[in-house]
Amino acid sequence: MTTRCLQVGVIGAGRIGCLHVEHLTTRIPSARLLMVADISGERAQQCAERFGIPAYSANYQDVIQHPEIQAVVICSSTHTHAQLIQEAAKAGKHIFCEKPLALDLETIDQIVQTVKQAGVQLQVGFNRRFDANYARVRRAIMQGEIGEPRLLHIISRDPAPPPLEYLRTSGGLFLDMAIHDFDMVRYLMGAEVEEVYVQAARVLDSHIAAIGDIDAAITVLRCTNGAIATIDNSRSTAYGYDQRVEVLGSAGAIHTDNRYPNAATLMDAHGVRRDLPLHFFLERYAESFYAEMAAFVEALLQQRSVPVNGEDGRAPVALALAAQRSLQERRPVRLDEIP
Amino acid sequence: MTTRCLQVGVIGAGRIGCLHVEHLTTRIPSARLLMVADISGERAQQCAERFGIPAYSANYQDVIQHPEIQAVVICSSTHTHAQLIQEAAKAGKHIFCEKPLALDLETIDQIVQTVKQAGVQLQVGFNRRFDANYARVRRAIMQGEIGEPRLLHIISRDPAPPPLEYLRTSGGLFLDMAIHDFDMVRYLMGAEVEEVYVQAARVLDSHIAAIGDIDAAITVLRCTNGAIATIDNSRSTAYGYDQRVEVLGSAGAIHTDNRYPNAATLMDAHGVRRDLPLHFFLERYAESFYAEMAAFVEALLQQRSVPVNGEDGRAPVALALAAQRSLQERRPVRLDEIP
Amino acid sequence: MTTRCLQVGVIGAGRIGCLHVEHLTTRIPSARLLMVADISGERAQQCAERFGIPAYSANYQDVIQHPEIQAVVICSSTHTHAQLIQEAAKAGKHIFCEKPLALDLETIDQIVQTVKQAGVQLQVGFNRRFDANYARVRRAIMQGEIGEPRLLHIISRDPAPPPLEYLRTSGGLFLDMAIHDFDMVRYLMGAEVEEVYVQAARVLDSHIAAIGDIDAAITVLRCTNGAIATIDNSRSTAYGYDQRVEVLGSAGAIHTDNRYPNAATLMDAHGVRRDLPLHFFLERYAESFYAEMAAFVEALLQQRSVPVNGEDGRAPVALALAAQRSLQERRPVRLDEIP
Amino acid sequence: MTTRCLQVGVIGAGRIGCLHVEHLTTRIPSARLLMVADISGERAQQCAERFGIPAYSANYQDVIQHPEIQAVVICSSTHTHAQLIQEAAKAGKHIFCEKPLALDLETIDQIVQTVKQAGVQLQVGFNRRFDANYARVRRAIMQGEIGEPRLLHIISRDPAPPPLEYLRTSGGLFLDMAIHDFDMVRYLMGAEVEEVYVQAARVLDSHIAAIGDIDAAITVLRCTNGAIATIDNSRSTAYGYDQRVEVLGSAGAIHTDNRYPNAATLMDAHGVRRDLPLHFFLERYAESFYAEMAAFVEALLQQRSVPVNGEDGRAPVALALAAQRSLQERRPVRLDEIP
Repeated sequence: MTTRCLQVGVIGAGRIGCLHVEHLTTRIPSARLLMVADISGERAQQCAERFGIPAYSANYQDVIQHPEIQAVVICSSTHTHAQLIQEAAKAGKHIFCEKPLALDLETIDQIVQTVKQAGVQLQVGFNRRFDANYARVRRAIMQGEIGEPRLLHIISRDPAPPPLEYLRTSGGLFLDMAIHDFDMVRYLMGAEVEEVYVQAARVLDSHIAAIGDIDAAITVLRCTNGAIATIDNSRSTAYGYDQRVEVLGSAGAIHTDNRYPNAATLMDAHGVRRDLPLHFFLERYAESFYAEMAAFVEALLQQRSVPVNGEDGRAPVALALAAQRSLQERRPVRLDEIP
Repeated sequence: MTTRCLQVGVIGAGRIGCLHVEHLTTRIPSARLLMVADISGERAQQCAERFGIPAYSANYQDVIQHPEIQAVVICSSTHTHAQLIQEAAKAGKHIFCEKPLALDLETIDQIVQTVKQAGVQLQVGFNRRFDANYARVRRAIMQGEIGEPRLLHIISRDPAPPPLEYLRTSGGLFLDMAIHDFDMVRYLMGAEVEEVYVQAARVLDSHIAAIGDIDAAITVLRCTNGAIATIDNSRSTAYGYDQRVEVLGSAGAIHTDNRYPNAATLMDAHGVRRDLPLHFFLERYAESFYAEMAAFVEALLQQRSVPVNGEDGRAPVALALAAQRSLQERRPVRLDEIP
Repeated sequence: MTTRCLQVGVIGAGRIGCLHVEHLTTRIPSARLLMVADISGERAQQCAERFGIPAYSANYQDVIQHPEIQAVVICSSTHTHAQLIQEAAKAGKHIFCEKPLALDLETIDQIVQTVKQAGVQLQVGFNRRFDANYARVRRAIMQGEIGEPRLLHIISRDPAPPPLEYLRTSGGLFLDMAIHDFDMVRYLMGAEVEEVYVQAARVLDSHIAAIGDIDAAITVLRCTNGAIATIDNSRSTAYGYDQRVEVLGSAGAIHTDNRYPNAATLMDAHGVRRDLPLHFFLERYAESFYAEMAAFVEALLQQRSVPVNGEDGRAPVALALAAQRSLQERRPVRLDEIP
Repeated sequence: MTTRCLQVGVIGAGRIGCLHVEHLTTRIPSARLLMVADISGERAQQCAERFGIPAYSANYQDVIQHPEIQAVVICSSTHTHAQLIQEAAKAGKHIFCEKPLALDLETIDQIVQTVKQAGVQLQVGFNRRFDANYARVRRAIMQGEIGEPRLLHIISRDPAPPPLEYLRTSGGLFLDMAIHDFDMVRYLMGAEVEEVYVQAARVLDSHIAAIGDIDAAITVLRCTNGAIATIDNSRSTAYGYDQRVEVLGSAGAIHTDNRYPNAATLMDAHGVRRDLPLHFFLERYAESFYAEMAAFVEALLQQRSVPVNGEDGRAPVALALAAQRSLQERRPVRLDEIP
């Protein structure tokens, strides 16, 4: 069975990098993790020791040039993605890269082009596609359980905004946070978006206002299949993480609830109550991070196309740019206006 | 206690008229219904006999000119509302009128003006304000349970479109159906709307397409309190009537579910299921029709302002007209563009 | 259509009596209420005036002897039921009587015998059979949606115990409160009970302990169809009225939730919560009181058997007596041990 | 930190054994698994290779006598538990053993005695105590969220009976299946059981009837804290695994729902439905198996008492024996009747 084993290297041993390492070493027997690299050699070493990885390095090129490694998992900072993908592609490695590929379309186009020329595969880390709730909604749509989809609503609210220094370079609400939701519209609809319109709520968080960003917005998207989608984004809620979708189709509708730490309900003199939903995205989406990596490994071993490719990495960035323009110009923006 | 009794007449003995008659005669002891009129004298007679009303007439003026009647309830066709309200006002009667007052703002302005000059009160039949679900949401907002409201979503879907002949003269989706939802935005937010934007889904129902109307749309509304609202309207669903709202506030969120004929859940080999929500609007909103009429009678007896006045009747029509223009011109429309 | 109208008299104008009067006068057009009697003539008069009843009396015999009255509704105190039923039966009137018929089986047997000999019908006020939740569960069982029923659980808890003076003469938890649940077991199972076993929780309420009653108990019942039922009774909860059932069948299961004043759910920093269920039995079961009376009137008009007869009034009393003995003797008691 | 590492050996590499091995090697960094043994050397080898365990054996004594192993995890067949525990205890190893310790109390008493004399600790595998739902209910009780507990209901139904050959030697419904629920009563109540009463439903499964076992029963338990508990057991349901509890306390109540593969709800012309609950106990209780082992390792490292000890292993067996006698003798059985 050794022929059914994929040799993998990981670049970036931060929070997400270590999560992928854990899944590759403990839950995906058909993967063999040969090396982890991190700009901090110490971090790489700690990760290697904790998960029993044979080798580590402070130099990502040791992973990319490793002769036995067939696939590289890139979990370094966003601004390094383009360079690393292109080097890995030229070295003939398949690539899994965290989202977003880049914050501009020109760079992404170059990435996609290089990957194509190199004849390797690139999977982008839109993990939510692998979440049981969204997968169930997609299945309902694709198998016709609700007929032709007509109206889609996504609620995607974070418990609290990231640190201000992060926000400053994040690219703003649309590129940083809504990008998952833009991907979700395409994934659920099985269609592209033609037009985007944004209305932002008056900014409440003075720090976010100070850097010119927004903290809550409604985005409306017209899809090529004639359906309309809305996305409700908020950088914070009083009650934690809120991640739901609902779809109206011609033959039915489907909606999802949040996931909870337990299924207990308590009644007392004050009311009927339950504990808050899972608060932390790594906990809420834990299984999806495993499932996307397992799907990546399996696709390569079976020489099938990976489930989220470079084009899927590009489209949400284009939608985020359209949303930014709609916000600035206070009008609906067609996707063909985005170069 | 006779001084605490309001003498009432009803004009229009159709479905809604009879419902108001039933409430006035059986559930509102402080009202005394003296006469019912209907263009069909036979219908008026049947209604009077069924509910023990002392008098009936085929001529609405018998109600308006009745010396003992203090308040007139108008349930006739929309196109008659303006005329009847103005006659009743000039006769010094207080008025309850079904929505909409009229389909154009000029007429409504005349109505409001006449009513004001006559020194009588006018309540408009936005019954949903009196529904327990919406009233609970409004209370959460007004009492600060969820902090400052930021994002509001209304789902308002009918089980099936009305007959085509009705649709032809209904004024279209916005004036006929969404008008309740436009009122709900104002009611829940306690604020006005500044700007409206519409995206309609591709029309599925060929009959509706043939008369140039739409059958499903998303409307986005920016409110003067800085909040953003969306309305999801559909003329039909496969599963019946769907009436829900949810609001995100700075300190929490609240959402409502539909109402069901029973609270039973069944599990078998195929899944976990319950019966469909209440299907018919008269059943779903039954209590709200009673409550609005009780509130009307009580306000007059206590010489307080009625809870839904002429201005509340005008604003949703203005919003519907703005929505129509947004759909035609494919752009957000400011309310100050609507004359 | 006058031939399809039932002439009715009501005896007892207390809380339940007035409720039946309201339904008979406002919601059941095929009934005509001719007279109300109450031991307090003033109470009878007030009721008659409020609901427009042609006649009233302080003497119940005026109802029973009224030549035009075809059916008598008995809502007086429990200890008067036997006498009134027998007099009414002998006068040839059909009878609706509130539960329980009596607190001992000998009296009930005499009642049933007299009614039978008189050739009239007797319906007992087990209103919960007409509640939408329980009716849905029964339908699931009768139509085979869950196969053959095997295990049934009833939760039946009051918000707070009745006044102590009432409790003293109530007959105790089983005859006063659980009697509805004993009826429900028979109604849902469509079978009789063979054996009863009771375990009472240690009494918490010192007043209830002082009069030798219990305040919470589990009753287990073996049915003739081989199914086992449990009843969970409590005289009080911190959170209000709690009325639920669930049934496991060979092909599925069904359970009911409580009914709520609204369907709103609120999320804030403390949790996810909703308002408490409907608290008051007259509110929780409002529709069932109407439905049982409508069914009574309709059955008589159509010359069909009434849906809850004298035998249905006897069986729950026998079960209560068996439960009392089980509690005293700390053993399962067979129904054939109850004379 | 090497001093905070527990050296562990596992005996039995079947389904549950491999699950513990997986948790020990991949999710519990403070444990070091040195050896796995199985009566099938091949199974031991496969397990060792899959999870990178340094050594394996076909002889369990290699684990028990291993000089560096501090704790032994016993996952072999029930009939071997007594022997293995006693040998391990005499070798000075701490022990984790799957439930039940044995099917008779005499053997268990010997086990507990030996373990005590050896000065080692013994944890019994009642994993459900570590499930998030039950832990939440226990927390509600222990922290006074619902006041003093009065009535407890456990629903514990399997999707389908085990194979007949397994059933023949399983010890019957109470020792094999309800044993978890007997433990749960003690865990949630924080009290012992004084008396047990059983009513079994008429047996539906002819194979189970043929071996003299039952397939569905209600057990009523009176606790030393004055509370009453019921357990609803069924060997099969049409809809899968059903695991719920609810508790009424003097200040509130708490109940749990099942866990589901997703939180999606679908509405169509036929009703409102969701997918069935998690079907397989290893999936439903996955996290609890990890958590019990982590708690075992942590307790030993911190030299605290293990959370489920030998006495906790004995009591549910006594309850099962009392239940068997109640069923045979058709009467409530006091625990002090069980030798």
